[in-house]
Amino acid sequence: MLFYALDIIGTFAFAISGVLVAMQKRLDPFGILIIAFVTAIGGGTLRDVLIGRTPVGWMNDLNYVYTIGLACVFAVLLRKKLNKLRKSLFLFDTIGLGVFTIIGVEIGISVDLHPIICIALGTISASFGGVIRDILCNEIPVIFRKEIYATPCILGGITFFVLQYVHLEEDLIYIFTALIVISIRLIAVKFKVQLPSIYQK
Amino acid sequence: MLFYALDIIGTFAFAISGVLVAMQKRLDPFGILIIAFVTAIGGGTLRDVLIGRTPVGWMNDLNYVYTIGLACVFAVLLRKKLNKLRKSLFLFDTIGLGVFTIIGVEIGISVDLHPIICIALGTISASFGGVIRDILCNEIPVIFRKEIYATPCILGGITFFVLQYVHLEEDLIYIFTALIVISIRLIAVKFKVQLPSIYQK
Amino acid sequence: MLFYALDIIGTFAFAISGVLVAMQKRLDPFGILIIAFVTAIGGGTLRDVLIGRTPVGWMNDLNYVYTIGLACVFAVLLRKKLNKLRKSLFLFDTIGLGVFTIIGVEIGISVDLHPIICIALGTISASFGGVIRDILCNEIPVIFRKEIYATPCILGGITFFVLQYVHLEEDLIYIFTALIVISIRLIAVKFKVQLPSIYQK
Repeated sequence: MLFYALDIIGTFAFAISGVLVAMQKRLDPFGILIIAFVTAIGGGTLRDVLIGRTPVGWMNDLNYVYTIGLACVFAVLLRKKLNKLRKSLFLFDTIGLGVFTIIGVEIGISVDLHPIICIALGTISASFGGVIRDILCNEIPVIFRKEIYATPCILGGITFFVLQYVHLEEDLIYIFTALIVISIRLIAVKFKVQLPSIYQK
Repeated sequence: MLFYALDIIGTFAFAISGVLVAMQKRLDPFGILIIAFVTAIGGGTLRDVLIGRTPVGWMNDLNYVYTIGLACVFAVLLRKKLNKLRKSLFLFDTIGLGVFTIIGVEIGISVDLHPIICIALGTISASFGGVIRDILCNEIPVIFRKEIYATPCILGGITFFVLQYVHLEEDLIYIFTALIVISIRLIAVKFKVQLPSIYQK
Repeated sequence: MLFYALDIIGTFAFAISGVLVAMQKRLDPFGILIIAFVTAIGGGTLRDVLIGRTPVGWMNDLNYVYTIGLACVFAVLLRKKLNKLRKSLFLFDTIGLGVFTIIGVEIGISVDLHPIICIALGTISASFGGVIRDILCNEIPVIFRKEIYATPCILGGITFFVLQYVHLEEDLIYIFTALIVISIRLIAVKFKVQLPSIYQK
């Protein structure tokens, strides 16, 4: 229940991040809606398509659709005040990252895939909505260039399996995994940590 | 039967619109073929993949493949005269929009999805071929920026369900839905209607 | 067995071509890994998704994942010496092209699709990893513009069916098809053959 609520909060935050990018590109209202949608459910949709879990997730639960619609209205109406909310939005977004990672890993386990593939599915669930958003907006995906975004997901996924290996209780595994993803992300952004560059300056 | 013929006409028109964009980008013959293909069957393919209707539609009916091949030959040979045919092409394209919308909605209903999702599937079927075309050609999809393209599909999809609710005969539902999509599109283009902008001038 | 080894060699070469493009775009290590991955398994993944063969291939055989990881480490460490290896890499890449084409055609046959569709699947398997790579790197796919890449696959696919029609032994069909793909590709690059342009100079 709490988990579902966090999932919806994450969806809301991801949708808003989509609206913000779409408005920067001056898209029309339909474009904004689609980009919000794709950002919020693109990662999970790609995951579902890759493992053949169709119709894909959001088609069977309209709450995602409503949440995204609401996020669009909210973001467009409050667009001038969103800057002040930047901190809360970033927190929501980070919660989404943690929750989506866990969902992806779990679904991978449920279809008997290898842990490495499950971690990949968690990372795809959490970070590929943003990749599709950037492609649709004609940008090289930002997470390929400079943002610490996928790394917390990968480390969270590894944590998940390590904790399962030591037979921790399921609820605790969820909480610890989410905390790992969220805290790595927060620390990385706070201290402006980036992946080491392989290029000479 | 008539419906199938209209579907093929729509495919033909969509393929030609793909060829035109591909030639503008000066792609080679293989690139032109692929862009024509993707424009014509990309929306339906995405729909089929999302709901797990695989192998996707065109793989089981070669008439689509032949139609698209023919459209390429036709468009490349007559490329200097296409300007004069612009009006017929636009009409065909609009017919395609109406027919593809109905097919998408119908397929959504056949797998028991919620009306809102069915309307989304109709819109995806009709308008996402163009989105994939624009992504492959490295453009921000035109329907996210200025063209009234998806809106008629959405309104057509809603019409479809309203008419079904009042128990209209199936044939009439098809005809009315197609007419709604086509006439809104024609009126929007004729009077240069756009979605309202949310940006200040 | 030999075939599987060639498949892995092709995967390795495709991954390296991904790393090279990613480094040109100055992506970070995560971006490089993803682009390597997508280049190597993108074509096969798209094929599997289109025909509903899920979970997609690489999820059930970690050797692909390890090969791609190795290719990344190899390419990043030796990045200054890769130029000297250009010839071997090009050869590996061309072997991959031949092997992937055959795999795609075979899988199409195994799900009873029409020869034309099977040839399309072979071409998709072999050449669409590069298409997805270019889209992610915000380029118009190079194979749509100037590179002879898909044509050998298409001709190889046709060869495959012709040889099957004359009841050649299976092993020989594989070898001949691969040789056709590889030699056309080598000749085309050696003599700088391109598809004829339809544009006036």
